[in-house]
Amino acid sequence: MPTNVFPLDSTKPFTDQKVLGHNRWHPDIPPAASVRPGDTFRVDCREWFDGYIRNDDSAEDIASAPLNTVHALSGPFRIEGAKPGDLLIVDIVDVGPIPQEDEGPLAGQGWGYTGIFAKRNGGSFLTDEFPDAYKAVWDFRGDRATSRHVPGVEFTGMIHPGLMGTAPSAELLGRWNTREAALIATDPQRVPALALPPEPDGAILGGVPDGDRERVAGEGARTAPPRENGGNQDIKNLTKGTRIFYPVFVDGANFSVGDLHFSQGDGEITFCGGIEMGGFLDLHVDVIPGGMEKYGVAENAIFMPGDTPPQHSRWLSFSGTSVTLDGEQRYLDSHLAYQRACLHAIDYLSTFGWSKEQAYLLLGAAPVEGRFSGVVDIPNACATVYLPLDIFDIDIRPGAGDVPQIDPGIGAPRASVG
Amino acid sequence: MPTNVFPLDSTKPFTDQKVLGHNRWHPDIPPAASVRPGDTFRVDCREWFDGYIRNDDSAEDIASAPLNTVHALSGPFRIEGAKPGDLLIVDIVDVGPIPQEDEGPLAGQGWGYTGIFAKRNGGSFLTDEFPDAYKAVWDFRGDRATSRHVPGVEFTGMIHPGLMGTAPSAELLGRWNTREAALIATDPQRVPALALPPEPDGAILGGVPDGDRERVAGEGARTAPPRENGGNQDIKNLTKGTRIFYPVFVDGANFSVGDLHFSQGDGEITFCGGIEMGGFLDLHVDVIPGGMEKYGVAENAIFMPGDTPPQHSRWLSFSGTSVTLDGEQRYLDSHLAYQRACLHAIDYLSTFGWSKEQAYLLLGAAPVEGRFSGVVDIPNACATVYLPLDIFDIDIRPGAGDVPQIDPGIGAPRASVG
Amino acid sequence: MPTNVFPLDSTKPFTDQKVLGHNRWHPDIPPAASVRPGDTFRVDCREWFDGYIRNDDSAEDIASAPLNTVHALSGPFRIEGAKPGDLLIVDIVDVGPIPQEDEGPLAGQGWGYTGIFAKRNGGSFLTDEFPDAYKAVWDFRGDRATSRHVPGVEFTGMIHPGLMGTAPSAELLGRWNTREAALIATDPQRVPALALPPEPDGAILGGVPDGDRERVAGEGARTAPPRENGGNQDIKNLTKGTRIFYPVFVDGANFSVGDLHFSQGDGEITFCGGIEMGGFLDLHVDVIPGGMEKYGVAENAIFMPGDTPPQHSRWLSFSGTSVTLDGEQRYLDSHLAYQRACLHAIDYLSTFGWSKEQAYLLLGAAPVEGRFSGVVDIPNACATVYLPLDIFDIDIRPGAGDVPQIDPGIGAPRASVG
Amino acid sequence: MPTNVFPLDSTKPFTDQKVLGHNRWHPDIPPAASVRPGDTFRVDCREWFDGYIRNDDSAEDIASAPLNTVHALSGPFRIEGAKPGDLLIVDIVDVGPIPQEDEGPLAGQGWGYTGIFAKRNGGSFLTDEFPDAYKAVWDFRGDRATSRHVPGVEFTGMIHPGLMGTAPSAELLGRWNTREAALIATDPQRVPALALPPEPDGAILGGVPDGDRERVAGEGARTAPPRENGGNQDIKNLTKGTRIFYPVFVDGANFSVGDLHFSQGDGEITFCGGIEMGGFLDLHVDVIPGGMEKYGVAENAIFMPGDTPPQHSRWLSFSGTSVTLDGEQRYLDSHLAYQRACLHAIDYLSTFGWSKEQAYLLLGAAPVEGRFSGVVDIPNACATVYLPLDIFDIDIRPGAGDVPQIDPGIGAPRASVG
Repeated sequence: MPTNVFPLDSTKPFTDQKVLGHNRWHPDIPPAASVRPGDTFRVDCREWFDGYIRNDDSAEDIASAPLNTVHALSGPFRIEGAKPGDLLIVDIVDVGPIPQEDEGPLAGQGWGYTGIFAKRNGGSFLTDEFPDAYKAVWDFRGDRATSRHVPGVEFTGMIHPGLMGTAPSAELLGRWNTREAALIATDPQRVPALALPPEPDGAILGGVPDGDRERVAGEGARTAPPRENGGNQDIKNLTKGTRIFYPVFVDGANFSVGDLHFSQGDGEITFCGGIEMGGFLDLHVDVIPGGMEKYGVAENAIFMPGDTPPQHSRWLSFSGTSVTLDGEQRYLDSHLAYQRACLHAIDYLSTFGWSKEQAYLLLGAAPVEGRFSGVVDIPNACATVYLPLDIFDIDIRPGAGDVPQIDPGIGAPRASVG
Repeated sequence: MPTNVFPLDSTKPFTDQKVLGHNRWHPDIPPAASVRPGDTFRVDCREWFDGYIRNDDSAEDIASAPLNTVHALSGPFRIEGAKPGDLLIVDIVDVGPIPQEDEGPLAGQGWGYTGIFAKRNGGSFLTDEFPDAYKAVWDFRGDRATSRHVPGVEFTGMIHPGLMGTAPSAELLGRWNTREAALIATDPQRVPALALPPEPDGAILGGVPDGDRERVAGEGARTAPPRENGGNQDIKNLTKGTRIFYPVFVDGANFSVGDLHFSQGDGEITFCGGIEMGGFLDLHVDVIPGGMEKYGVAENAIFMPGDTPPQHSRWLSFSGTSVTLDGEQRYLDSHLAYQRACLHAIDYLSTFGWSKEQAYLLLGAAPVEGRFSGVVDIPNACATVYLPLDIFDIDIRPGAGDVPQIDPGIGAPRASVG
Repeated sequence: MPTNVFPLDSTKPFTDQKVLGHNRWHPDIPPAASVRPGDTFRVDCREWFDGYIRNDDSAEDIASAPLNTVHALSGPFRIEGAKPGDLLIVDIVDVGPIPQEDEGPLAGQGWGYTGIFAKRNGGSFLTDEFPDAYKAVWDFRGDRATSRHVPGVEFTGMIHPGLMGTAPSAELLGRWNTREAALIATDPQRVPALALPPEPDGAILGGVPDGDRERVAGEGARTAPPRENGGNQDIKNLTKGTRIFYPVFVDGANFSVGDLHFSQGDGEITFCGGIEMGGFLDLHVDVIPGGMEKYGVAENAIFMPGDTPPQHSRWLSFSGTSVTLDGEQRYLDSHLAYQRACLHAIDYLSTFGWSKEQAYLLLGAAPVEGRFSGVVDIPNACATVYLPLDIFDIDIRPGAGDVPQIDPGIGAPRASVG
Repeated sequence: MPTNVFPLDSTKPFTDQKVLGHNRWHPDIPPAASVRPGDTFRVDCREWFDGYIRNDDSAEDIASAPLNTVHALSGPFRIEGAKPGDLLIVDIVDVGPIPQEDEGPLAGQGWGYTGIFAKRNGGSFLTDEFPDAYKAVWDFRGDRATSRHVPGVEFTGMIHPGLMGTAPSAELLGRWNTREAALIATDPQRVPALALPPEPDGAILGGVPDGDRERVAGEGARTAPPRENGGNQDIKNLTKGTRIFYPVFVDGANFSVGDLHFSQGDGEITFCGGIEMGGFLDLHVDVIPGGMEKYGVAENAIFMPGDTPPQHSRWLSFSGTSVTLDGEQRYLDSHLAYQRACLHAIDYLSTFGWSKEQAYLLLGAAPVEGRFSGVVDIPNACATVYLPLDIFDIDIRPGAGDVPQIDPGIGAPRASVG
C-alpha cells in the first residue's frame, strides 16, 4: 500500500483526526504533508458532510444539512519543487470507498447517499419543481450500486473525486472574492443564494496558526464551486486511470482533494448528488515546469480520463431547449436546456411507476451522460441527456405494447424545510 | 434502393426541382409526399445554403451567406394515419453524402465545409473572440475526412441530419412566434440578433397555393432553432441506426428533414458548422398511437442513438467555468462554461502550431464530446470538452519534452464583414 | 463515385460480364484492370455462387451447391509499380450490398443467405452433428438484418469481404499444390474432403489466353482456403475503415477480392456462412516498398480493423475444451474446443425454443466473437464464444424464473444429400 | 470488508496457513469453509507457485519451477444447499493483488511475473521456437503494469482468476483420469508431456484425513487443464463484474479458486503466463436449482463478462493459417493457425528492437485478443491476434518512414534446462 499521508479514523470526526484537513480555500493553510514529484501516496477522504447524513429512511438530515461545514477536504499536500506557472500532473492510481470497511454508520462504509437539497437549504438544479428535501441510500457490492429507495435499477459506479485542486494565490483568491461578492450583491436575499461568501462559522483551516485563524476564516473561499484551480468540478469521468493537469498558483502547489462519489450523472443535478461517500485515493504526482505557458493553460484543469469506464452500448436520450416551463423564450441558455431535458427524462420515467423524485435521484446518481448538442441555433440551445438502458431491470424503450410497471417500494424519503 | 420520395438533381437549384421543399415551418405547407407506417423510403437532401458555399480558398461566401434562405428542407412527408398526440417513430436506416457523386461543385459531392459566421452575419458561439468569417473545406474518403485548411487531422465522420422535425400546429406556431418576438423585443438592434422573426424574403414554401403564400410567409417560423417539434437540434449522435420519437402536432405528422452533416462536434460551435453537405437518407417510419400521453412526452424528441459511432478510447479534455473572459462571475451558466472550455482547447491546440481559427474550425467539425459536468455548484457551472487523441497526426498530450509543431499549411481562409 | 474498374450487371451471369473475373489463384491470370498507388476505385462483387442460391424456403440449392464454381472473384487488379517483397496497403474505404438495388433474385439485392453445407457436399464446422443442408435467408434494412427462418433476433451487420488477396508467384503456387496434395493423399476418399485439388471443371480464369487455359486450369489453386496471400480469411473485422497489408509475390501484386458478407460470426462456422451477398467495395491502395523485409512479414496479412464496428456491452459466453463428444481426450486442440463451445451455445439456445439448426445458423451469421482462451493447459485447450445479448428479442440470461420461449416460426429449410 | 473465509498470511508458505487449501481435484477433499446462497465473502489467493518465483533478473526459477506443486488453490467452499444438477452462480464482486501490501517478495505484493517455460520443464505454446526459460517481472501502479524486462510498453491489466471451478464427482474424476491416461499412453515419453497424470508428490489435499491421503493423492486430478468443472480456463475476460455459471457435480458444489492474473493475453501463450500474482477475490454466490437441465448445460462454464474492461479503439492484427513452419499442410488446425499468427506478431515486433522473447512475453501478458477467424475453409484454419496500439510508447503501425527503434534495456532473463 502506498504510504498514507492523510489517514482518517472512521470512528472519529474529521476535526479529531491526527492530521487536520480543511474546508476553505486559502493560500495560508499550511501543507498537511509533503510529497515529491514521482511519488505515489495514499490519501483518505471523509464524506463531504463528515458523517452528518445517515443510512436511514428519513430525509430530515438532508433538510438540515449544515452547508457551512462542507467540503471536508484532505490536504493540502505540498509537492516539492512545484512553482507558480507549472502544471501539476495528478494520476488517479486508485480510488474507492473506505477500504476493508463495508459496514458502519459512515458513508463510504459499504453505502452512500444521494440527496436533493431543499430550496431553502441549498437548492438543486430543479429546485422550483422539487422544493423539498429527498434522500436515497445506495448499497455497494463491489463497484455496483442498488438502492431500497430507488428500486428497479442497478449500475456499475464511476468512482471519482468530485473535488480536487491546487491552492489559490492571494491574488487569485482576492479575485474570487471580489467577483463573487459582486454577483451576490445583485440579489443578496435570493433563495437559494447566488453564491456563498466567506463564512467563518464552521470553517476548518488545517494548521493555520491561531493568530491567523480569524483573518483566514474571513477570507477563505468556499469550496462549493469549481474555479481556476480545479475545485469542485464534479466531473464524473475522473475515474481510476485518469491523469489531470492542474495550474500551480503557489509554491508547492498545495493540492487538496475530497468529495468522493461512488457514481454520478453528468451535472450532479441533485446537488447533494452523485452517490456521496468517504474513501481513499492513491495518487501519483509529477510536475511540468512552466507548463502553464508551455501549453497555454491559464486556468482550469486539463485531463485524460481513465480507460475503464463501465461500458454501455444502448441508450435512451432526451432533449430539451431553452424555453422555460412557463413558455418564456430564453436566449441560447444551455443550462436551461439541460434542465428541460432532465425534466423530460423524469416525466418519462414516471410513466413506468417511479415517483418523479425517484427518477430525479436516479439521474443524479447513475452514470447518465449530459451533452451540449446545439449551442448556436438562436434563440434555442439544445441539450441532451443519455440514460443507459441496461441499468434498468425492465425494458424502458417506447413501443407498441403496454408500459411495464415497477414497484416503487417505500419511495424516496422526503422532508420539508419550513 | 428504397423508393425516393424526394429526389434532387444536383445540377439544379433547390427551387427548380420536380418537388419543391421548404425553408420555413408552417402547418399549411402541404405534404410533398405521403408514406405509410412501416414504409422505408429515400429522401435526398440539399446542403442548407443550396450550393452557395464553394470548394475554394476564400471565405467571402461565408461572409455573405444568405441567412434568409436556410434551411433547404426536404418534405414535408405525410405519414398516413398519424394524429396529434401520437409519437412518430423515425429510424435512420441509412444516411450519407450524395450517392454516386463524389466530384462536383455542390457540397456533398465528395466534400463539405465548415464555416465560422462573422459577427455581423450570423455570429457563432465564440463570436466576440472570432468576429470575422472563416471557412474550411473537408474532403471525404469513405467516411473519413481531411482538410487542406486544417492539416494534421483526420477522422471518421458521424454522419447525421442536423435538422428533422414534425410540422407545428397553428397553435404551437403561434406560441413560437409570440415568445420569440418577446425575446427580440428586449434588444431589437442586437448584433447578432437574439432570434430571427418570420421573414418573407427568401421564403420557400413548397406547395402552398399562391393565395396563401403571403400569409404563410409572414407567419412561418424560421428553421434555425430546435423547438418542440425537434427541428434544428444538431445532435451529432443521430447517426445511422438511430431511432427517434417525435411528437405529432398535425394530422399526418408532416415530417421534414435537412441540414446533413458529415461530422460535427457537440454544439456545432462554429454555427455554419459541423461539416455541411447534401446527401440522402433512407428512413423507416412508424407510429405509436397516443404515445405522447402514454410516455409523458409533451415536447422535444426522444431518441436511441445508433450503435456504430466511431470508437475512441483516448481523450484529452478541457474544462471551463461560468466566469467571463473579463473576469465577471455569472450564475450557473453552463453555456458560458462551455465557451470557456472550448476557448481553453483552442488556446491549447495553438501551442502546437495550428492557428486559433483552425482549432476553432476543428472543434466544430470533429467528433468532440461536450458535457455538462457540474450544474449546481453555485455560482460556477463546469463544462468539459473531450478531444479524441487519435484524430491528430501528432501526439498532443502534455508532457516533459518539446511541444511538437505541425505545419499549418495555407491556413483557414478569412473574410471580414464591414 | 470512385471509378468502377470492375462493374457487374446484376441481370447477367458472372461469365457474361464485360470484364471477366476468376475463381482460381494463378500468377498467369492477367489483370482485369490497372490502378496506381494512391488511387481510390470501386469494384463490384458477385456473391460467391453467382446467384445459384435463391431467396426461398427450400434448402435444395444449398444441398446441391456447385462447389467447383466458387468463389466468383473480382480482379485481378494490377497496382502499378508494386514488386515482389513490397507490402500492398489496401484501405476498405466503403463496402456494402449492391448499391441502389434492394429487390431482386440476386443475393445482395436487399437480402443474403446463410447455409449449412451437407456433409456430402462441403460439410461444415459441426458436420457430424448437422449432416444435412440448411438455409436461412436474411433481409436487410440499412445495416440491420432479420430472417424469417431465424425469428427473434435482429442485429447490425459487420459488412466485410470474406476473401481478398494477392496473386501467388509460380513458386508459391507450386508449394500450395504440393503441400495440399500431400494432405489429400493421407485420406483421399474422405468425406468431406481434406482439401480441394486444382479442378478444371468450373474454372473461370479471366483473361487467360485460350492456349494457356488448360494448363492454368490444371494448376490453379482453389479459393476456399486462406493462404500466404491472404485469400479466404473470413475475418469478420475487415469492415469499412480497415487497412490491410498484403505481401506482394508478383509484379503488380494482382489483387483480387470477393465473397462479401453482410455479417458473420467468428469462424464462419456454417461454411456457406456469414450472410452471403454480392455488393461493392471502394478501395484505396498504396505500396510500402520492401515492406515484407522491413516489417518481417513473410506471409499472411496484417491489418488494422475499422473503427465503427457495432457496439455491444453485454455478452453471454460459452466455453469448450478439447474433449470430443464421445469423451475422447485430445491434445491441446483449439479447433475442437471451439466446436464444443459452439455446441454448448447451440444446446443453450435450444432451451428457448429455437431449433438447433436455427441456433447454428445464427452463430454463423451474427457478430459473435470466438476467442482462444487457454492454449497451453495440457491436455485441454479452452475456447470461448461470446453472444451479444442485445441481438435477441427476449432476455436470454440464465436466472431464477421460467425460460422464456420464442416462436420458431417456419424453421430453417432442410435438405438431405443422398 | 466481506468476511474473509480463506485468509492467507503473506509471510508464511501455503502449507503453513490456518486453513489449508489444495492443488488437486478430488470429491473427497472436504470444504475449507461453508457459505450460503446470497452470501458475499472474501478469499485470499496465493500465486500458483507459492512464492517460488522471485522478483529478480534471473530465469533460473522459471527453469526449475516445481510443476508438481501447482496450483495453490483456495477452497473448496461449500455452498449450502447446492446439489448435483444445479448451476452455481459466482459473481466476481472484486479481484485484485494482495490488499494493502505493495512491497515484498511474494508475487502480488506490487509485482507479478510472466514466464516462458522451458521445453524440458513444462513447455509453452511456441516451445519449439523458444525451448529455453525466460522471465519478465512486472511492476503494478494501480491497475497499470510496466516491466524492466520488456521496456516500451505500459497497459491496464485485466485482473482475473485463471482458475475457478467446482469439485468433480467420483464418476467424473474417473472419466478424466481414464481419458487422460489414454492420451498419455499414445506417447508416454513425449517432451513436453501430452498430459499430467495424478501425482502424489507435491500433492496438497486440504483437510483430507490421514487415512485417505494416499488414495486421494493417487486419484486426484491435476489442476493444469480446464475441464467440465471449469478449472484452469485462463479466460482473461473474467474480470470484476463477471457472473459465471458452473455445473454442480457434488453436494455443496465445493468451489475452489486460484491462479490470479494481473493481466493476460488470450491463450496465456507463455504457459507460466499472464502476469502471475497472489491476491484476493470478493465473491457472491447463488444457485439455480436444476439449472443444468433447465439451460442445457451439461459441462463447462457459461459466463457474462464484466463491463469495465480497459478500452482500446485502435489495433494492429496478425493472421496465421494451419501450415507448419516447415511448410506442412495441416487440416483445419486452429491451434496451429494461432501459433503462426503469434509468431508473425513476434517477428513484426522484433523489427522495432524488442528481442523475440520480449515480444513473446508481451503477447502472453498484455490484453491482446486472439480470435478464430475461419474454421471451415479447408484445409486452412485462419486465426488472428489483435494488439492494442496504445500500449506501446512508440507508434508501431507500418508506414512509409523509418522503423522507430526502442531500447530493449537489459532484455528478458534466460535460463536453459539441460
